Amino acid sequence: MQIALAQLNPLVGDLAGNGEAILAATQQAGQQAAGESVLVVTPELSLWGYPPRDLLLRPSLLELQPTVLDRLAAGLVDQPPGLRVLVGVAEPSGSTALPCLYNAAALIEAGCWRIVCRKRLLPSYDVFDERRYFKPADQAAVLELREGERHWRLGLTICEDLWVEEELQGQRLAGSDPIAELLPLGIDALLNLSASPFGHTKLALRHHLAHRAAERLGCPVVYVNQVGGNDDLVFDGASFVKQPSGATALHLACSRPQVGLWALSAPEPAAPAPAAVETRELPSDPEQMFRALVLGVSDYAQKCGFKAALLGLSGGIDSALVAVIAAAALGGEQVQALLMPSPYSSSGSIDDAVALAQRLGLRTATLPIEALMQAFDQTLAPGLGAIPSGLAAENLQSRIRGTLLMAMANQQGQLLLSTGNKSELAVGYCTLYGDMNGGLAVIGDLYKSTVFELCAWLDSDAAGPTRQDLGLRPSGELVGDAIRHKAPSAELRPEQKDSDSLPDYAVLDPMLKALIEDLRSPEELVAAGADAALAARVMGLLRRAEFKRRQAPPVLKVSRRSFGTGWRMPIAAR
Amino acid sequence: MQIALAQLNPLVGDLAGNGEAILAATQQAGQQAAGESVLVVTPELSLWGYPPRDLLLRPSLLELQPTVLDRLAAGLVDQPPGLRVLVGVAEPSGSTALPCLYNAAALIEAGCWRIVCRKRLLPSYDVFDERRYFKPADQAAVLELREGERHWRLGLTICEDLWVEEELQGQRLAGSDPIAELLPLGIDALLNLSASPFGHTKLALRHHLAHRAAERLGCPVVYVNQVGGNDDLVFDGASFVKQPSGATALHLACSRPQVGLWALSAPEPAAPAPAAVETRELPSDPEQMFRALVLGVSDYAQKCGFKAALLGLSGGIDSALVAVIAAAALGGEQVQALLMPSPYSSSGSIDDAVALAQRLGLRTATLPIEALMQAFDQTLAPGLGAIPSGLAAENLQSRIRGTLLMAMANQQGQLLLSTGNKSELAVGYCTLYGDMNGGLAVIGDLYKSTVFELCAWLDSDAAGPTRQDLGLRPSGELVGDAIRHKAPSAELRPEQKDSDSLPDYAVLDPMLKALIEDLRSPEELVAAGADAALAARVMGLLRRAEFKRRQAPPVLKVSRRSFGTGWRMPIAAR
Repeated sequence: MQIALAQLNPLVGDLAGNGEAILAATQQAGQQAAGESVLVVTPELSLWGYPPRDLLLRPSLLELQPTVLDRLAAGLVDQPPGLRVLVGVAEPSGSTALPCLYNAAALIEAGCWRIVCRKRLLPSYDVFDERRYFKPADQAAVLELREGERHWRLGLTICEDLWVEEELQGQRLAGSDPIAELLPLGIDALLNLSASPFGHTKLALRHHLAHRAAERLGCPVVYVNQVGGNDDLVFDGASFVKQPSGATALHLACSRPQVGLWALSAPEPAAPAPAAVETRELPSDPEQMFRALVLGVSDYAQKCGFKAALLGLSGGIDSALVAVIAAAALGGEQVQALLMPSPYSSSGSIDDAVALAQRLGLRTATLPIEALMQAFDQTLAPGLGAIPSGLAAENLQSRIRGTLLMAMANQQGQLLLSTGNKSELAVGYCTLYGDMNGGLAVIGDLYKSTVFELCAWLDSDAAGPTRQDLGLRPSGELVGDAIRHKAPSAELRPEQKDSDSLPDYAVLDPMLKALIEDLRSPEELVAAGADAALAARVMGLLRRAEFKRRQAPPVLKVSRRSFGTGWRMPIAAR
Repeated sequence: MQIALAQLNPLVGDLAGNGEAILAATQQAGQQAAGESVLVVTPELSLWGYPPRDLLLRPSLLELQPTVLDRLAAGLVDQPPGLRVLVGVAEPSGSTALPCLYNAAALIEAGCWRIVCRKRLLPSYDVFDERRYFKPADQAAVLELREGERHWRLGLTICEDLWVEEELQGQRLAGSDPIAELLPLGIDALLNLSASPFGHTKLALRHHLAHRAAERLGCPVVYVNQVGGNDDLVFDGASFVKQPSGATALHLACSRPQVGLWALSAPEPAAPAPAAVETRELPSDPEQMFRALVLGVSDYAQKCGFKAALLGLSGGIDSALVAVIAAAALGGEQVQALLMPSPYSSSGSIDDAVALAQRLGLRTATLPIEALMQAFDQTLAPGLGAIPSGLAAENLQSRIRGTLLMAMANQQGQLLLSTGNKSELAVGYCTLYGDMNGGLAVIGDLYKSTVFELCAWLDSDAAGPTRQDLGLRPSGELVGDAIRHKAPSAELRPEQKDSDSLPDYAVLDPMLKALIEDLRSPEELVAAGADAALAARVMGLLRRAEFKRRQAPPVLKVSRRSFGTGWRMPIAAR
């Protein structure tokens, strides 16, 4: 029997459209299989797109669901026999008590469908809120499928059900071990319908988890992940089939839709000693991250109905990286860069920005802000008894630029991209209603150090094939040495440098990572060797910037803990 | 034995400070009881403040907890014997699997403490995320306390454990019925440690639930609620003791801290027929709501370290209501009103705003924006090939005002209050980075119709005592007829009225309420008599404004479903 891994990119909440895409992928897989039986496996909640969030609470969408499933079943009637598809659905539990749904999978055959699996482990940590909507199921699911004389027994699991290895994961969800419960049931393969967002080093972890399950069960594991950007989350696909030996029998693309066929046969015996899991062929870390960010931007734009984007280009490295990502996502001709020099802007910054825009093929416009700075001073002076000074004056410049960007974007129908990084968002070195403006914070989950690293990779030979594949100039400098090697500066007052206000990013970023991703305390940082006054200061900055982050645009998540739906800190707190 | 209801206002995350406040309240109750045994009951998670949100994930805070409890126990050593306090804590479960905590209560006596209760029903709907942090407990908790010869048996529950009446609530959480399980255990009183946010008509519901439990158990119910504003949530206190007859034996204040003593005696027999629950003496709906909004503003300001606030005063009813609330919360002298007329502002608007500021004792400043409008036009024209027009031009005016407000607030160290209402936030009739600017959206959960109603109440005789109590002028017009009776207008172009773009609020608001709070579909609205084109249009507006709401300030919640932590809708979705 053939298994088709349908790594699809759904539009959240568009049950009818997602159903049509599933039907098209299923029909295509049927044609490719040329007469053999095919089971098409789609991602978790594939009919809804993951995460549907509170759309799961809308009765009208739940009522629409069986109609869409009926339509899918009807669409298989005139197809070759033996063509079936597993679809991720939200199954009403029949009770009115909250939560009312199961996170489930339906098997659709010609003319009929039925629920065949319910999720056991419901993540309610980080960005996940599944306990808000779903009840946990309490038994293992095995699907028996007949192919001529052969009866295939397929273990069915949904996403987190595979995440049961505390040692590999660091921490796991309390509850049963769905893999252990499948052991005595004698299955020929384990299928996992997933919606696992991209994260740094996460693809290798998925391979390790699938390998462990394949070893324990002595059968292959078919892992089908969603692909696509949905607000702050980027699902990188990269679906695969893992053998008990650790060998990868099939590997689909990172960060783009694909349907791949794999022939299920009698199980390969486990290797005598646990073999190393094969992850050599996976794309490099910076390539994975860059592709995820590009997908995040292109999908957010497309799913929100934007063809073109706008960003402020300062000549600094953050907006340079966002410009590269935007050009790769939408095409350079669809991206406009706005230069908004002030009297404090260095001529180098302007030249560097113009040169970068040329390398990327962006349109530019230059709108100097000095006249507006003066007009604001004149307007405000009667109210303040003086012109604005200090931080208020610096914020004002940033807000003039933010307002110009929004006026251009509004008038021209562009998506404004926000260019701030995670280090800035963490310590509040950014202006609310100013440089934070935008529909999407493209690199808001990259520390400044990561921004430097990713730009260094982009300018290296190693990035050549990726650049070519994404329509960027394949060789020569892209971000450029001038931008990559200048000292970071907000240029909001004469000769200003980030290092006037903040410690070096080489010191700051590891502290931030410990405070944010490991939830360490300043005391723990000091015990690990940090300067006590600095640790306390950084923690204070982090805490006091919470009100800014609450109003930030969605941040594309690439780390274990990003500022966004998975970061739920109070503002008025100690 | 005396029971002390300690309706406290904690600072979220300030375990040490909250512990000290609990100790002070306990010592005070001990003095008042003059030698009798006293059990002090504090709200849910009283050591942390509710909701602690992701602070519960910080290991250093969890490790601090026993130290603070030890200190509390030590603080009772030199107190009269028989003085004890129940404190809401987060108890580590001892497992590393997620979630790792219980939402629990600790009994603290002189020199020692122990966990005596763990929460059973963990809300993970609306604004609540308890499954993210907590495991549910699986058994009923009874506390036995000795007072001389008498053994008192007290049933212990935490917040949602009392919310088991599907008929009263409309919907309940799946799980056990903690009240039913206490029935055979023969208790003398039921204690409930709560953190129940204010909501329209919710106080009456709490009384009904407590009455039902008191009836079922045949004993009084002691309901102790948190008080205070914590970001978007306002906890209104209003703790009480309910007898099986429905009589209220004790009732503490709405929306301010208070400690009240009540003498526990042999249970009063239930009334032969279920008596009506006594809610006559509760404050009126508008008074409850006004006090909750005032508390929300005063606590947000105080807990974030602001003494003074700023708002834009347009002469319209929304900013007028926010001005009244701010004056009541902080004192008129701590509130500054900024008037920012444009060529499209009517002279009536300016006069009305000035007169209102005088009635409230606010400082005002007037900063006309025409020069800035022209300066932006001149700066943008080269980029756009024309000056901004249409919506872009209207947004620009709003963003000029938003930027002036932020410059004033930054320079003067004020909290900027956002003045938009729920109807506007729902349909996107508001400007991101413009009139949405602010640290707190004070009336962002009030439909425009509710704004009119609350202002009518404020100007009525019925509001006199509340106005006096909160330091507002006790009689005469407050909001004023001129402001209350003008047609709503954004005044962003000549002769503009809200009704040019939106249906009458009398039509719009009930539709919005059905779409937002009841999660109805446009089709269901049509089936209930709405115009089909209008229903589809309003739903489209609601959906498309999601990106604006994602970046809105925290909205003080007063309805069943507000835009904020309990509204989790995707942006890029259908």
